[in-house]
Amino acid sequence: MKTIVLLRHGESTWNKENRFTGWTDVPLTQAGIEQAYHAGELLKEKGFFFKKAYTSYLRRAVKTLDCVLERMQLEWIPVEKDWRLNEKHYGVLQGLNKKETAQKYGDAQVLQWRRSYDVAPPPLEEDDPRNPRLDPRYAQVAPAELPRTESLKDTVARILPYWRQVIFPDLKHNDPLLVVAHGNSLRGVIKYLKNLSDEQITSLNLPTGVPYVLEFDDNGHLVADTFLGDPDQIKKMMQAVADQGKGG
Amino acid sequence: MKTIVLLRHGESTWNKENRFTGWTDVPLTQAGIEQAYHAGELLKEKGFFFKKAYTSYLRRAVKTLDCVLERMQLEWIPVEKDWRLNEKHYGVLQGLNKKETAQKYGDAQVLQWRRSYDVAPPPLEEDDPRNPRLDPRYAQVAPAELPRTESLKDTVARILPYWRQVIFPDLKHNDPLLVVAHGNSLRGVIKYLKNLSDEQITSLNLPTGVPYVLEFDDNGHLVADTFLGDPDQIKKMMQAVADQGKGG
Repeated sequence: MKTIVLLRHGESTWNKENRFTGWTDVPLTQAGIEQAYHAGELLKEKGFFFKKAYTSYLRRAVKTLDCVLERMQLEWIPVEKDWRLNEKHYGVLQGLNKKETAQKYGDAQVLQWRRSYDVAPPPLEEDDPRNPRLDPRYAQVAPAELPRTESLKDTVARILPYWRQVIFPDLKHNDPLLVVAHGNSLRGVIKYLKNLSDEQITSLNLPTGVPYVLEFDDNGHLVADTFLGDPDQIKKMMQAVADQGKGG
Repeated sequence: MKTIVLLRHGESTWNKENRFTGWTDVPLTQAGIEQAYHAGELLKEKGFFFKKAYTSYLRRAVKTLDCVLERMQLEWIPVEKDWRLNEKHYGVLQGLNKKETAQKYGDAQVLQWRRSYDVAPPPLEEDDPRNPRLDPRYAQVAPAELPRTESLKDTVARILPYWRQVIFPDLKHNDPLLVVAHGNSLRGVIKYLKNLSDEQITSLNLPTGVPYVLEFDDNGHLVADTFLGDPDQIKKMMQAVADQGKGG
């Protein structure tokens, strides 16, 4: 049996303001930092001892990972950061809150963007300062790979090769692994591993800061998946994310 | 011109208690965290934009680096951690304070350990729980490479191959580089680069949390080295480290 733990970053400033965040690099709130520390304590209590960790290029995920490793006293383990673990890109919606978005585009359109698997918001203009091609951190990435918007389907298509070619094979050398990422990038992984339909994955709401433990048999098949923590509490957290109406 | 910035970690709990720390994995104090944030602010003000960072396996260095990257908004850059950047191993002295050490071993002996370049304190016993060979974080390192004590000369001999084979050649791809480490591991680098004598290096006292900027010409020769910040303040800090009498 081999283990990968997935963790969605703690509350960010824009989660709190209910804004579409996507690739905008906002920090954690104080509550988000505490969620991250709590996740680290829980993992330590349960006896986890990670060999390596993966995270995205976005500071809300990096900081969550740093807090977890600090509480687990595993600051020394190798950490690999990759842009392919970033959140779904929300195109022109990035920065808008739910109310502003509804006023600008209408309720029906917003519902479609929120619920559909394969409809992306309008893309950023090529010269929009938010375009990742203008951000030095993505200078090493082929411009054609960098999105100016994404549907959840696009996000899944971007993350899966990285999961299959980099993270999953690394289990051979580094078991257990920790992956700290985002609501939608982790949805992509879970859809693939649990063979969920497009509808099933759009209605799955990962709670923030709750470790999700995946166990694989010797053939690499997922044989168990569990959230760490109090089940009633986790149910409430998943409902709260669903009510918020976005995966930010 | 290419640039490497060296940074000694902020104040740790054992710096504060004036204990020999070495490979003991103690955290930063609150003052140490603030020193680290301050270093990050200074580097940001001066317009540094690191491509990659190196640090040791010890949390006082990792945390210092995390704080610096947070203030510079460079959390996403790659970080490589390596045990060869660890502090000098202080053998059986690790955990003792200066007074205890003097009582146990006598003033003359302590003076020799503090001032000499090539005399190491007595080694830890093979079965001492502090022996790095019993610590899972060093499980990938050949046991013969792991010290149970070190003179400054041993520390220099351990760090230089890593500097010459890994860090320095990486300047070709990742300029500028940031290296966050420890009083004595950084002494090793400076001795080598500035061709200092054994006496000169034992009397060099790197201030904590002050970025030390090294500039290299196209032939890889060191052509400039400067501490960032107020010169009078830095002089006082170097004197304070000298008075403390150890590089911990």
